[in-house]
Amino acid sequence: MHPEFQRALAAIVGGANVLTDERDTAGHFVDWRKQYRGVADCVVRPASTDEVAAVVKLCGREGVAIVPQGGNTGLSGGATPTGARREIVLSLGRMNRIREVDPLDDSLVAEAGCILTNVQQAAESAGRYFPVSLAAEGSCQIGGILSTNAGGVNVLRYGNTRDQVLGVEVVLADGSVWNGLRSLRKDNTGYDLKHLFIGAEGTLGIITAAVLKLRARPSASATAWIALETPAQAVELLARLRGQLGECVSAFELVSRRCLEAVLAHARDAQDPIATPHPWYVLVELEDNGTFESLQSRLEVALSDCIERGEVRDAAIAASHLQAAALWRIRESIPEAQFANVKHDVSVAVSRVPLLIERVEAALAKSFPGVRSYVFGHVGDGNLHYNIGEQALVARRPEVNRIVYDAVAGLGGSISAEHGLGQLKRDEITRHKQPLELDLMRSLKRALDPDGLMNPGKVL
Amino acid sequence: MHPEFQRALAAIVGGANVLTDERDTAGHFVDWRKQYRGVADCVVRPASTDEVAAVVKLCGREGVAIVPQGGNTGLSGGATPTGARREIVLSLGRMNRIREVDPLDDSLVAEAGCILTNVQQAAESAGRYFPVSLAAEGSCQIGGILSTNAGGVNVLRYGNTRDQVLGVEVVLADGSVWNGLRSLRKDNTGYDLKHLFIGAEGTLGIITAAVLKLRARPSASATAWIALETPAQAVELLARLRGQLGECVSAFELVSRRCLEAVLAHARDAQDPIATPHPWYVLVELEDNGTFESLQSRLEVALSDCIERGEVRDAAIAASHLQAAALWRIRESIPEAQFANVKHDVSVAVSRVPLLIERVEAALAKSFPGVRSYVFGHVGDGNLHYNIGEQALVARRPEVNRIVYDAVAGLGGSISAEHGLGQLKRDEITRHKQPLELDLMRSLKRALDPDGLMNPGKVL
Repeated sequence: MHPEFQRALAAIVGGANVLTDERDTAGHFVDWRKQYRGVADCVVRPASTDEVAAVVKLCGREGVAIVPQGGNTGLSGGATPTGARREIVLSLGRMNRIREVDPLDDSLVAEAGCILTNVQQAAESAGRYFPVSLAAEGSCQIGGILSTNAGGVNVLRYGNTRDQVLGVEVVLADGSVWNGLRSLRKDNTGYDLKHLFIGAEGTLGIITAAVLKLRARPSASATAWIALETPAQAVELLARLRGQLGECVSAFELVSRRCLEAVLAHARDAQDPIATPHPWYVLVELEDNGTFESLQSRLEVALSDCIERGEVRDAAIAASHLQAAALWRIRESIPEAQFANVKHDVSVAVSRVPLLIERVEAALAKSFPGVRSYVFGHVGDGNLHYNIGEQALVARRPEVNRIVYDAVAGLGGSISAEHGLGQLKRDEITRHKQPLELDLMRSLKRALDPDGLMNPGKVL
Repeated sequence: MHPEFQRALAAIVGGANVLTDERDTAGHFVDWRKQYRGVADCVVRPASTDEVAAVVKLCGREGVAIVPQGGNTGLSGGATPTGARREIVLSLGRMNRIREVDPLDDSLVAEAGCILTNVQQAAESAGRYFPVSLAAEGSCQIGGILSTNAGGVNVLRYGNTRDQVLGVEVVLADGSVWNGLRSLRKDNTGYDLKHLFIGAEGTLGIITAAVLKLRARPSASATAWIALETPAQAVELLARLRGQLGECVSAFELVSRRCLEAVLAHARDAQDPIATPHPWYVLVELEDNGTFESLQSRLEVALSDCIERGEVRDAAIAASHLQAAALWRIRESIPEAQFANVKHDVSVAVSRVPLLIERVEAALAKSFPGVRSYVFGHVGDGNLHYNIGEQALVARRPEVNRIVYDAVAGLGGSISAEHGLGQLKRDEITRHKQPLELDLMRSLKRALDPDGLMNPGKVL
């Protein structure tokens, strides 16, 4: 790094916040799955929006690109430098203030570096609820989950991270600051700019703070593990439960028998919730106001009807929070119980999930006899984590990807439901998106970042 | 109109669908409140996306601008020609097919010209619910409500029209067609383009079809008319009810005593729901699954607690659907009961509604002693229709506007919560938006419509 550039950065953020020593930078130059590595000039840690703006202006003058980084828990390499040009990593972690909590407005203002669990807790302290919840919540940051429009386990009821945002503050590519920190449920005064920056993975500007929506905190939940014959039964069950119980259906997770077996083999304390084996399962959760007993009995009535009609083979309703936690532990152990295989994060219309599974299984059986696939995911969102093994197949990843992605494309689906494009799917997406849509994205990129300094080599 | 241009249009849509006779065009050249009039070359009525695309291409070659028009029920002149240049009105009404209803996916695909009630009914026929509901629902069209991101009475629970959209099909300024008709709950593969076109009032492209989200249909509702001392009590009551009852609070409408009196004077059959007069009222509705009786009793318990604590002065809970309808009729009669005054459609953070009313009342009293204001609206969304009379003040509209808009601006609010900018607030908005935000909007406009042919003279 040029000493003058370093001095200029230090003048903005303080010398201690320009990291150049390898021991300090190493963790910032690699993603957490260690799939991507790239060296940048340094890691800069601003403490305020003004400091971010000054750093961006300086980088603009020097022609240095900027890689914004939050908790660095992304799965697509979107926060890792590419090494293809002069870059700095801009780490937002010091901007971790919750600026305001307003329970009467059901909103709070958080800076980009706030860790998700801290935001959840701030909402809880105010008697409210922030519904975004995902595995990395103890280390991922607000700026990161907004920039990747993170999903998680509550999307069915509350929507993606995008749907939890009322306003944003963004440092633009020229270092100017757009103060869009409005807390308005309704505002029809022109183009909705916030949605442009949310999910853009830092390629159009740097989100430095956000106004987040809070919700009423449900007072009770009821959980069941349900055995089914086919994925089609799962989709029909979801429609029936929502028709009967309404929007309180807050989770609806599909699990194949093979996933359950992997968990039973992997986790010592795990138990099969239903004595007899069945080909497919669904983990259902209801959340609502009222008592645990009343919610449990509503779920029981609904499921008994389904069993009577033959739409469900069997069901185990959790009799306590402890039992509910054990059911969730099975679902949450699936990723670690079947690690060495080719993973996908895809989505289709909810009604097309059965067809997707049917087509992928048929194509896999043809190309890779004896293949073992692990199918699970947020079927209520049409989102499957479709993992294909065993390990030997990892070497043939492109062929396996091709089968899954072609089936997804044939059904009008998405090759990245939750995890974004980053570096991982930047090339692949050009095979799937209408060229016109890519052109539209490029023209927005040119309009907002004409010099291409915002997180280059990601998304587009 | 040049005869050749007319022939070329007729070759695309058929001669009968190029309207030039004044008797046919008159209704298309004026908005329904008759505030805006402008003459265009003709009204063109395409029947398909391809026809729209061909018309846009032709207009591009001829340098003729396009004013898209749906049910023509807008309140800001956004669908009326300005007369400032050569334009055609593109009326989408013939594109009125519901292309698909998928109850298992909780979605439907509707063309831009579908009337809102027809979409609501298609959802209902499939056992589902499309929650957008507003006064013009019998004539407004899907393309219009998407382009203006319409609000209405269900925003508190379900969000604005924007939040009901999974995908859109758009004819761009160069006549190319972006097929974004994806029905995906999760899709993180690049910039979210649909949100750019939703709410853009046709200035970035023409929405020709959309995939709309459906919901579970609530089986019961409970309704109450609640008397309060102050607007601050209304905001606190909302937080308390949502905390206690959860997201089933589906409407929360503020009504001032003066609004109620106007309705009682105007509508013969209207009755004061509570014998004693009170300064403020709220109309609350819960919607949920379960029975009418159970919902009613939940509302009763919650309100009794509030009355005991002195947070509510009195309350009348509807004992039947008939009584509930009578309460809603009061709320819905307010606009026609106080017509001749200066109207506003503003929003602030929900918690700031009391402060907004306080500041506007103080400023009004100072400038216009004896002024009568009619305050009502969707306070659960921070959205007030703040109408100020009597009639004599209409001549002093700019001064009255200034008082309201300055108070709104001082509280970080919006001068157009529901109704868009159109022609009506196109100039005013430049006083309120950060210049940077206007620049951002202009650069998006340039990127997507470089020749300025899409609904010129609106929004920007």
